[in-house]
Amino acid sequence: MNGAQALMKTLADAGITVCFSNPGTSEMHFVAALDSEPRMRAVLTLFEGVATGAADGYARMTGKPAATLLHLGCGLGNGLANLHNARKGKVPVVNIIGDHATYHVPLDAQLQSDIETVARNVSPGFVRTSQRTAELCHDAVEAITAARGLPGQVATLILPADVSWGEGGTPCPPAPAPTPQAVDSATLQAIAEAIRSDGKCALLLGGQALQEPALLAAARIAARCGVKLFCEVFPTRLPRGAGLPTIERIAYLAELASVQLTGFDHLILVDAKAPVSFFAYPGKRSELVPAGCRVHTLATPAQDAVASLELLASALHATQTQPVLQAPQRPTRPRGRLSAAKVCKAVAAIMPERAIIIDEAITSGLLLGLMTQGAPRHDLLTLTGGAIGQGLPNAVGAAIACPDRPVIALIGDGSAMYTLQALWTLAREQLNVTTIIFNNASYSVLNVELDRVGAGRAGPKARAQLDLHGPVLDFVQLAQGMGVSACRAATASDFCQALDKALTQPGPHLIEAVVPQSLSASKRRLLPWMLRALPSLPPSVAMALKRKIAP
Amino acid sequence: MNGAQALMKTLADAGITVCFSNPGTSEMHFVAALDSEPRMRAVLTLFEGVATGAADGYARMTGKPAATLLHLGCGLGNGLANLHNARKGKVPVVNIIGDHATYHVPLDAQLQSDIETVARNVSPGFVRTSQRTAELCHDAVEAITAARGLPGQVATLILPADVSWGEGGTPCPPAPAPTPQAVDSATLQAIAEAIRSDGKCALLLGGQALQEPALLAAARIAARCGVKLFCEVFPTRLPRGAGLPTIERIAYLAELASVQLTGFDHLILVDAKAPVSFFAYPGKRSELVPAGCRVHTLATPAQDAVASLELLASALHATQTQPVLQAPQRPTRPRGRLSAAKVCKAVAAIMPERAIIIDEAITSGLLLGLMTQGAPRHDLLTLTGGAIGQGLPNAVGAAIACPDRPVIALIGDGSAMYTLQALWTLAREQLNVTTIIFNNASYSVLNVELDRVGAGRAGPKARAQLDLHGPVLDFVQLAQGMGVSACRAATASDFCQALDKALTQPGPHLIEAVVPQSLSASKRRLLPWMLRALPSLPPSVAMALKRKIAP
Repeated sequence: MNGAQALMKTLADAGITVCFSNPGTSEMHFVAALDSEPRMRAVLTLFEGVATGAADGYARMTGKPAATLLHLGCGLGNGLANLHNARKGKVPVVNIIGDHATYHVPLDAQLQSDIETVARNVSPGFVRTSQRTAELCHDAVEAITAARGLPGQVATLILPADVSWGEGGTPCPPAPAPTPQAVDSATLQAIAEAIRSDGKCALLLGGQALQEPALLAAARIAARCGVKLFCEVFPTRLPRGAGLPTIERIAYLAELASVQLTGFDHLILVDAKAPVSFFAYPGKRSELVPAGCRVHTLATPAQDAVASLELLASALHATQTQPVLQAPQRPTRPRGRLSAAKVCKAVAAIMPERAIIIDEAITSGLLLGLMTQGAPRHDLLTLTGGAIGQGLPNAVGAAIACPDRPVIALIGDGSAMYTLQALWTLAREQLNVTTIIFNNASYSVLNVELDRVGAGRAGPKARAQLDLHGPVLDFVQLAQGMGVSACRAATASDFCQALDKALTQPGPHLIEAVVPQSLSASKRRLLPWMLRALPSLPPSVAMALKRKIAP
Repeated sequence: MNGAQALMKTLADAGITVCFSNPGTSEMHFVAALDSEPRMRAVLTLFEGVATGAADGYARMTGKPAATLLHLGCGLGNGLANLHNARKGKVPVVNIIGDHATYHVPLDAQLQSDIETVARNVSPGFVRTSQRTAELCHDAVEAITAARGLPGQVATLILPADVSWGEGGTPCPPAPAPTPQAVDSATLQAIAEAIRSDGKCALLLGGQALQEPALLAAARIAARCGVKLFCEVFPTRLPRGAGLPTIERIAYLAELASVQLTGFDHLILVDAKAPVSFFAYPGKRSELVPAGCRVHTLATPAQDAVASLELLASALHATQTQPVLQAPQRPTRPRGRLSAAKVCKAVAAIMPERAIIIDEAITSGLLLGLMTQGAPRHDLLTLTGGAIGQGLPNAVGAAIACPDRPVIALIGDGSAMYTLQALWTLAREQLNVTTIIFNNASYSVLNVELDRVGAGRAGPKARAQLDLHGPVLDFVQLAQGMGVSACRAATASDFCQALDKALTQPGPHLIEAVVPQSLSASKRRLLPWMLRALPSLPPSVAMALKRKIAP
């Protein structure tokens, strides 16, 4: 048995049965070994960023890692952005990066580069170049263990070609899963005391604390003790909709997040970080926790968030409390000319049970959360690391993970172009994914940001950098060119009809939603003023203003 | 003047007047500063790999760096593969990587990552995070100097948002260009002596040694002393065609390269490395220089290759020798059903004077060099670092660099999909680029490599990893979707007609050449045997065989 064959068996024995790949010559023995392991499914992608984003989406939905198969340092580079998203989302991924044969490395051939150095950016916890065929499967088991450890992480195993083709590979059994600790009793008591005090308290949930049992425990605490529930700004996976507790996401815009957090005396983190601004802005604080608010940590990412929340519920005598659950409630189908808001409304009106919603719509998707709050139960996957190009690859992985669930990916036009090659894999694997592209011919979020950073009145060259007109992208042709059935909608009724069809016919579909820029120029001009004014306004007024900003 | 405005002026003063960009929020002040500097042209790309590959192509044709503008570590990651190609090609590039404000970094916001670590993979010689607005332009001048130094390199300047928006920026004048040394006299004499000896000698030229004056000096030496001229396997830029010396490229396939190098007693390197196999193969040597052949270095990449060759010509009394120059000679237009070979033939028959040929056709382009040998004078740009996805972005940069020259990019279908977003920039800037896609619905080179690495008889899962059928990509729709006029050709006459049209009408055009796989299954089965047999055959027989392998 050669190294590659032994590795294949080791991966499958550990439950890693999907490999998202974009191989080259140095991975040919791994590729050949695919046929030696019936449990392993290899999913070919045309670009490494698709492979890594698919592994991310797959693990978000299954809770277990997929493997990637990438070609040396350059292949890893192409996959880096979506591995970054996985890292920030604490998502387990096992990267297998083919390398030159060990003896070929010193010759500095064309594709030679320092793979380990690149890998550290996304795999700070585990990067290893396997040196001998006999040890390869031990290395693999350690990589898998690292990936699965709490928190989940990206683990990178670099596989030299001669270690792969060498004889003497010996499969290794998987290592036992880690058993994380829950909160210690002193911390638990201090937090329970804070909640029992007169101070205004909020729980900020992220990562594992957004699983359904954790959400329910938190909702019981909220119902019993009047604690506010927040969700981190970009959750890795958030179950939501009718029948589940509703939880308010921290806003992307720091000005709005500040409004949300105003007045709290205690912020209790559960597998989440204290909120900070996504970017820095001149003259503004980056930390969003208000002065005087005390931050507690109920569970770090390495601790058992679910058990910790259940312990807290118990300490607060809330285990029998009835949580407030979201009532079913859907908007009617929109009518008239299409807009970004109407796309969100249509999705909320039409989406079926158990949908997986992938949101990379940036400005266009601002109303999606509000609209779908009472829609049938679904899972929401978001842009955890801010590296755009995550949505379509995530859809590939989520659909492979859950072939019986509909996937709806909402993607901005700018974002879609980073990893558009995902459409080909959707077609090849005939995945049940409905892709909705908001085509406003603009890097719309950057028009907002240009104002927000106070870069002054932009001239024509600056504006051209944010403008995707000339030529306007034709996503229908782009999709069809990769074998995905596609149509364009400019009215709400056309859009609803297209969505009905996409959700009832198997295989991938793409709908190009032609929408005006989500923020008109006049609203954009008002935005900095409104955002400055927000923190000084009462929350109800601020929230009304917020709705005006994002119609 | 803020940092960004001062930086813009410093770049322009140093002759950096093109910036290939894909900006985000942290780069908004740099974007706003574009309008403060009339000399700076910003070229927007939809993906960072297009920006970096365009900067590479631009510098190959102008000899001076362009700037890139990328968004934090993830943007750099997306641009890494083409920066790798630039690094391996010794091409100057000045990366400007936006970063969070310095005080925002410790907060570990979503997009925070270790940019310097990623950058070291491609910028081992210069990575710096500018810390203060007052010092930014000093840092920039050092980055530019590093990029331009001999050899050219990728220099990375990381620009925190607050350093960019801070007031007190002071432009700096450019530093003087380096004055490289030519070969020392002892080395010169030793090499001249080797050439005068009875031993069989070859000059291997790369990098700067492929400039026209260097080629002419080498050709004079060849004519006077019977020295063989070789060119490195993947030249950064090779001027060739009628009226120029002809130089034999080292073959990509190690087995063929060994045949080329057999029998030489002295190999003299001029800004080139001793040839090694592109990949390692089980049981085969990676070094291609035959045993007993002595390797000399006339000029390292840090030395003046042109002057060194001229000194050598002088030492060998060859300065007045008439070099052998390529006679004009073009094939006739091909007829009948299209094949990869006929595409190459048609390009050779039709290409105009002063074309820039970009070759990323891998297997399909095997005959291109032979066919175009006597075509009108042209420049050839190749895949210097082996990281595919270089061709289309290089075409963007070359066309910006040389707006009055036709660019013809020959790209494999698999390769094209890595950075297809380049088509949009071609359309937006209305660049005179004719893109030819060889659509054989296959990672054709990997079919060859699967056999070559001895990975055994591949099963259906392995073969599926190399197969781009299901769905077949429709490059006409993909191009039109990005605003590029496109057509499909399945016969030689249709192809010639399309090429005529593309070369006479301004703006970008794409021709999808529908071709059978360049190596049929039966030929692929024979290939390993033929390659094993080659080294033991006389060169003439081997070369005949080589032609059979790659029809």
